[in-house]
Amino acid sequence: MTNLRIPGPTPCPDVVLKEMGRQMINHRGPEFKKVLFDVTDKLKQVFKTKNDVFVLTGSGTGGLEAAVVNSFSPGDKVLSVSIGVFGDRFAAIAKEFGADVIDLKYDWGKAADAGEIREALNKEPAIKAVLVTHNETSTGVTNDLAGISSVVKESGKLLVVDAISSLGSIELPIDKWQCDVVVTGSQKGWMVPPGLTMVSVSQQAWQANAEATMPRFYWDFAKAKSYIEKGQTPWTPAVSILFALDVALDMIIKKGIDTIIAHQAHIAQMTRDGVKALGLSLFADEKYASNTVTSIAAPDGLDVIKMLKILREEHDTVLGGGQQHMAGKIFRIGHLGWITEEDINMVLKSLTIALPQAGVEIGD
Amino acid sequence: MTNLRIPGPTPCPDVVLKEMGRQMINHRGPEFKKVLFDVTDKLKQVFKTKNDVFVLTGSGTGGLEAAVVNSFSPGDKVLSVSIGVFGDRFAAIAKEFGADVIDLKYDWGKAADAGEIREALNKEPAIKAVLVTHNETSTGVTNDLAGISSVVKESGKLLVVDAISSLGSIELPIDKWQCDVVVTGSQKGWMVPPGLTMVSVSQQAWQANAEATMPRFYWDFAKAKSYIEKGQTPWTPAVSILFALDVALDMIIKKGIDTIIAHQAHIAQMTRDGVKALGLSLFADEKYASNTVTSIAAPDGLDVIKMLKILREEHDTVLGGGQQHMAGKIFRIGHLGWITEEDINMVLKSLTIALPQAGVEIGD
Repeated sequence: MTNLRIPGPTPCPDVVLKEMGRQMINHRGPEFKKVLFDVTDKLKQVFKTKNDVFVLTGSGTGGLEAAVVNSFSPGDKVLSVSIGVFGDRFAAIAKEFGADVIDLKYDWGKAADAGEIREALNKEPAIKAVLVTHNETSTGVTNDLAGISSVVKESGKLLVVDAISSLGSIELPIDKWQCDVVVTGSQKGWMVPPGLTMVSVSQQAWQANAEATMPRFYWDFAKAKSYIEKGQTPWTPAVSILFALDVALDMIIKKGIDTIIAHQAHIAQMTRDGVKALGLSLFADEKYASNTVTSIAAPDGLDVIKMLKILREEHDTVLGGGQQHMAGKIFRIGHLGWITEEDINMVLKSLTIALPQAGVEIGD
Repeated sequence: MTNLRIPGPTPCPDVVLKEMGRQMINHRGPEFKKVLFDVTDKLKQVFKTKNDVFVLTGSGTGGLEAAVVNSFSPGDKVLSVSIGVFGDRFAAIAKEFGADVIDLKYDWGKAADAGEIREALNKEPAIKAVLVTHNETSTGVTNDLAGISSVVKESGKLLVVDAISSLGSIELPIDKWQCDVVVTGSQKGWMVPPGLTMVSVSQQAWQANAEATMPRFYWDFAKAKSYIEKGQTPWTPAVSILFALDVALDMIIKKGIDTIIAHQAHIAQMTRDGVKALGLSLFADEKYASNTVTSIAAPDGLDVIKMLKILREEHDTVLGGGQQHMAGKIFRIGHLGWITEEDINMVLKSLTIALPQAGVEIGD
């Protein structure tokens, strides 16, 4: 099997893939109702929330759009905290739908500073909400969401979190950290193929929703809520991926979410130690290095594109390159979801061979 | 196997389900690029179009939202031709995003009249586009899209078509009929699970798109176009459903789209003849009766809910009820996608048993 080590889609266990191959059922019948109720209940358990949880058919970016259009009106001031591609994307969505976005941007590789968020909020009291990426996949950095949350909640603002690549893999107790809207995606730590985005919506988010006038139809949380009570979704859902998510959640709950989070942390540490032992440097500020994706600075002389091609074609190992202005300057090892020490050892072993072929000698 | 005879999701052939269970790949790598190119080329062939075709991750309703937000600006006058639930939904989406919608509504069970559409267009020359449902799933009626198109194109307006439950099953040569934006969904005639919506976009639609200011991010056709050139989608797609669609399209092309359309017409005629032989009446105006879903008027005394329950629990046969104000008044047999004469014979045989149990004697 290919060692697919990008930050999503992630490899899926056999039992999950088997569910993907199940025959269709009526999405408005009793069998589907049970699946939707079960999935929703299990998600709440793993999300550590009593908030409403909805499973929407779409990519994670759709979930981010849903978070925006359900929470704001055109002209609303929102503070966007961005540390990379996905933070910028969240801000771009809010701007597209007419929010008055105040950008707080950080150099790529760095985490956001809670104190600076407090300053930004104090400077502009009209700010209604903070948009923040918990784990920035493009740079391999995890923000201190607990710290950010306490600052945001000091002033009672709405906290809207892109947790696409963190929830289920990195600690994020939604209720304890008072996150109002949280978005994740099936193809990340959930060990399921892409096509679903799962969101949680707090009481404070519902209050914002009641006043929010951005246009919304497909992504409308209120429609989702009115249907989930009868065990349905407003529009025909990706039934197969719900089947798959149902069994993946069983696996997660059986293992225990805290055990999984500890396992991901261990695998991530092993990855960081391993690449450093090869003489490579982390791109991310190590204090905030992500436990779902490790970004590595390309050393002088490394042809990243060539190395990724060698890994893919000769080692059946797929890593991620750098996005946007980081193309050629970093590469990324995804290690969320279904992963073992052996998977990382194989990556490291393959790098030992591929790095010299792509221009860089190994070791110090 | 359950005889799933609702108008989508439809049963999927084994080879399609097998593809659903394939392991994940990199959605930004060469293997996915080939799948996306292949699927897009095959869709163009079956759609009979040289227009751009995009595969978006979402339900069909998402495709309808995409059609609206990519084509219009708030305040644009659009004529909505509605003959049922899905026509109303299309209009509701346009209204939500700020279009000035002129409603042309027909009694449920009836088809739209091209002459009346011409009158409406003549009466209000500022109308920019016509939104129309090709096949109305809620009532089992197929509009005369060729006739409607010729009227719409007399005045050069944009023709935006909900073909979710028709394309691939009922004749719809997109270029010949000059349809500007056409939307379908994977779980209909395509024999694939839900989760993808496929759209075609004409040159005239691109001209409209360039001027359209409705907010759009996730559904933005221009973003899809900029990515498809490199064999990618802007956001992580439902990879598994693309795998499945790829092989389903091979089956469709091997059999021939015109052969499939004739087969669907045959199955539909057989269904209509069969239910009439049971003494039942069609709900739809028979001249416009759909070849993908047959709607049947509930005779006096029939408890539709009870009948559907008996069919489901005792005959492993799932039919559709009526939607909205048609609940309890009609029931529907879906016969799109992967279907044989035997499937319909089994439905008719089960009805023979279930109808008397639910309050109605069989025959004249």
